[in-house]
Amino acid sequence: MQKPIKASAIANANIALVKYWGKRDKKLILPNNSSVSVTLKDLHAHTTVDFSKNYDRDIFILNRREFRVGTEEYEYTELFLSLIRKIAKSKLRAKVVSNNNFPTAAGLASSAAGFAALAAATNEALGLDLNKKKLSMLARRGSGSATRSIYSGFVKWRKGKKEDGTDSYAKQIADAKYWPDFRIIVCITTKEEKKIKSRAGMAQTVATCPVYNGWLRASKDDLKSIERAIAKKDFTLLGKTAERNCLKMHAIMMTTTPPIFYFNKPTIDVMQSVLEWRKEGIECYFSIDASPQVKIICLEENIKKVKEKCKHLKGIKKIIITKPGEGVRIIKKHLF
Amino acid sequence: MQKPIKASAIANANIALVKYWGKRDKKLILPNNSSVSVTLKDLHAHTTVDFSKNYDRDIFILNRREFRVGTEEYEYTELFLSLIRKIAKSKLRAKVVSNNNFPTAAGLASSAAGFAALAAATNEALGLDLNKKKLSMLARRGSGSATRSIYSGFVKWRKGKKEDGTDSYAKQIADAKYWPDFRIIVCITTKEEKKIKSRAGMAQTVATCPVYNGWLRASKDDLKSIERAIAKKDFTLLGKTAERNCLKMHAIMMTTTPPIFYFNKPTIDVMQSVLEWRKEGIECYFSIDASPQVKIICLEENIKKVKEKCKHLKGIKKIIITKPGEGVRIIKKHLF
Repeated sequence: MQKPIKASAIANANIALVKYWGKRDKKLILPNNSSVSVTLKDLHAHTTVDFSKNYDRDIFILNRREFRVGTEEYEYTELFLSLIRKIAKSKLRAKVVSNNNFPTAAGLASSAAGFAALAAATNEALGLDLNKKKLSMLARRGSGSATRSIYSGFVKWRKGKKEDGTDSYAKQIADAKYWPDFRIIVCITTKEEKKIKSRAGMAQTVATCPVYNGWLRASKDDLKSIERAIAKKDFTLLGKTAERNCLKMHAIMMTTTPPIFYFNKPTIDVMQSVLEWRKEGIECYFSIDASPQVKIICLEENIKKVKEKCKHLKGIKKIIITKPGEGVRIIKKHLF
Repeated sequence: MQKPIKASAIANANIALVKYWGKRDKKLILPNNSSVSVTLKDLHAHTTVDFSKNYDRDIFILNRREFRVGTEEYEYTELFLSLIRKIAKSKLRAKVVSNNNFPTAAGLASSAAGFAALAAATNEALGLDLNKKKLSMLARRGSGSATRSIYSGFVKWRKGKKEDGTDSYAKQIADAKYWPDFRIIVCITTKEEKKIKSRAGMAQTVATCPVYNGWLRASKDDLKSIERAIAKKDFTLLGKTAERNCLKMHAIMMTTTPPIFYFNKPTIDVMQSVLEWRKEGIECYFSIDASPQVKIICLEENIKKVKEKCKHLKGIKKIIITKPGEGVRIIKKHLF
């Protein structure tokens, strides 16, 4: 009989410069478009998993709160653990404890970090010996954007073409040290959980947005621009492309039936301000995922100015200044 | 020699339920898509024109401010007057004085009301004897949306197909009394002039928006829905269609290069609130033109509740409760 095994991993959140929005396969979590992200140094999930015959069902505790059977959070975790059991040919149930050092479900890629950490921890716990490519494919099954949190620095998630998803995985474009003066300022505008989860929002967009095909076409162009921008360290091209890509994503969400609208008042304030600051000569760009939080991208030379400007904006609860960070890693410290 | 003649007209602003956004001919002001609007009872422009040999150049005074040669406002007015002179075979210069009873250039269709009134006043002053259809075509040359302010109630502007624009004019769908409990609440969120005028914004959208064709396709569907909604007095269909059409327009503006973003913080607040109020059972919808102002559409039965709710929203400078109103009319009261 298999010995019960426990392992812990840390994975960072990531912010997409070219967004992932819409699935071609909901079960396998295969995207309609490729995406590119930056893994964020200071926002992470720390996850411990313990497989043991002591558990008669899976247990999931996130940020000290236990999620019951039937909640979305529990069901997705259980689905993921069942997949792991199938791969590992194990019947052991697991206890999963995960803590984020940033607000959860508020649109800060908590599920990306969480599932990347869970994938790595289960891989370690059950001795699956998956390489990073395989690990990114496994993490994908938990949450699409988790695919990218496996790697450090700048990461591309290739959408792939195959029906079985074996060509849909992440690849590192450049590591965390590649662009030393690259900075991301995370502006937390609310700590409330977002009303519409990405999964539901995407499905609704694919089903009802009249210009979704336009999004897919435009996102191909943005992908090329971002890859060129990273290769050349062309910050202007990167910022402009990321900002426009984000606006396109929000545009397609706004035009679904019923409309999905993630912005709150501070979101708008930061967006309008960033556009103003650029006119004043401070080069910075915004990006917003499926949430009211805003990330400002700038270079180290402007970080003081942007930070000072942010202080005068109402409605920002907290700012976190961060930079490209590490990929997922196994750690010895367990959470229970 | 022609006697100098003076005439005055009043025209109401209008709010589009299916928006006009983008021209197929900039000189003739021919649109890429047909649009439908409601003429608003309580927002109007009062315009007096005086053609006389006493003037050696056109004079344009708007809300007690004289616009000089070279300003956009002066040039568009002068262009329009030159067109009139060509039609009337006159060489007389004119003095135009116009007052709006609502904030100007803040995105409340002041140019629609202004040019509709100017078209009617010049028609009267120079005895052109244009019928309403011709008048709507003339008003169109001043400002696209002015085409619709010629008529009362619910109005359609047919885009037309001809290159010379002779089939691009407004038609009344139903008069102002047709839907007695139809109400529009204009929420003024700023009295500042908008940063990007519609004319420039449209041109930028047509030139750079990657999903502009999707907008044109979707707007055809919305047109059918709105016409059906008006015919059947189906308020839910009308409201939903208008709200989504507005979001689509803002979506295409957001995705131009550079992005055009008209919303301010109160705009977002009203939008989010309207979505909430609907969940609470108060049926109302928002519509936003190329400006931060929000119009809420509801029926008389909900007007008290919506008004009360609006009072608790920060950032609304003023609300005007109005309903479908009259078309352009000649009046005897001159402004000078």
